Amino acid sequence: MDQRIDLITLRVEDLDAATRFYADGLGWTTMLHVPDEVTFLQSAHGQAMSLFIASGYDADTGSPIDVPVVFAQIVNGAAEVDRVVDELVEAGATLVKAPEPAVWGGYHGFVRDPAGYYWEIADNPGWRVDADGTTRIGAAD
Amino acid sequence: MDQRIDLITLRVEDLDAATRFYADGLGWTTMLHVPDEVTFLQSAHGQAMSLFIASGYDADTGSPIDVPVVFAQIVNGAAEVDRVVDELVEAGATLVKAPEPAVWGGYHGFVRDPAGYYWEIADNPGWRVDADGTTRIGAAD
Repeated sequence: MDQRIDLITLRVEDLDAATRFYADGLGWTTMLHVPDEVTFLQSAHGQAMSLFIASGYDADTGSPIDVPVVFAQIVNGAAEVDRVVDELVEAGATLVKAPEPAVWGGYHGFVRDPAGYYWEIADNPGWRVDADGTTRIGAAD
Repeated sequence: MDQRIDLITLRVEDLDAATRFYADGLGWTTMLHVPDEVTFLQSAHGQAMSLFIASGYDADTGSPIDVPVVFAQIVNGAAEVDRVVDELVEAGATLVKAPEPAVWGGYHGFVRDPAGYYWEIADNPGWRVDADGTTRIGAAD
């Protein structure tokens, strides 16, 4: 598994309040905002954080999880998702959701590391990173 | 406040097990490992994650916090820590620990965002990022 967090997903109860804090309060640039669903903001060179409405967060992982943060690595293609999930489990992670098509159009699986933290391994065709580290997601621009 | 997470700190009960999982199980490179205390691993271009032993994590924030993850931004100098903490509070964050000298030699303060997530703003003289995004912390190499 490459040494890289691509996406940090935060479970939020009030998406509007969380989005206002980062976008308006701190002046951060929003990559994508889907009302009542999710807001993406770049968080590092080549990395984004998403504020994900609690109901969507809970549904996405397949079963309720007790940590409000998920780290994700985005890889190319379903076979690579399967391979990395297998590698994580081999290394001692617990399988939380076997890889399957995601409701948002990609393919993903979830595991939990030995310390209790969750990882999502995903193929997300809408994700890309420009040469300068700018992250992009969703519709072409 | 710049749009940037520099460090992701994870509270871990068993530092050896967590370190083994990432370093040995996944083959990730360790930046710094201080036995019974903390392990740092690069997590993105210019960003690191730290596995911080629970007792140290709890002590560092000044009071017990109910989220096991803290995002940190590293800035230059105590005055800049003070300024960014003020900016966060102005934007609606709650002050958790007013800026003060840190036990590890720097200077830091903690706030909580409206969604419940914690941020540490720190001046850490041991932290640097090379031009290629490689992160370094602690002793010179």
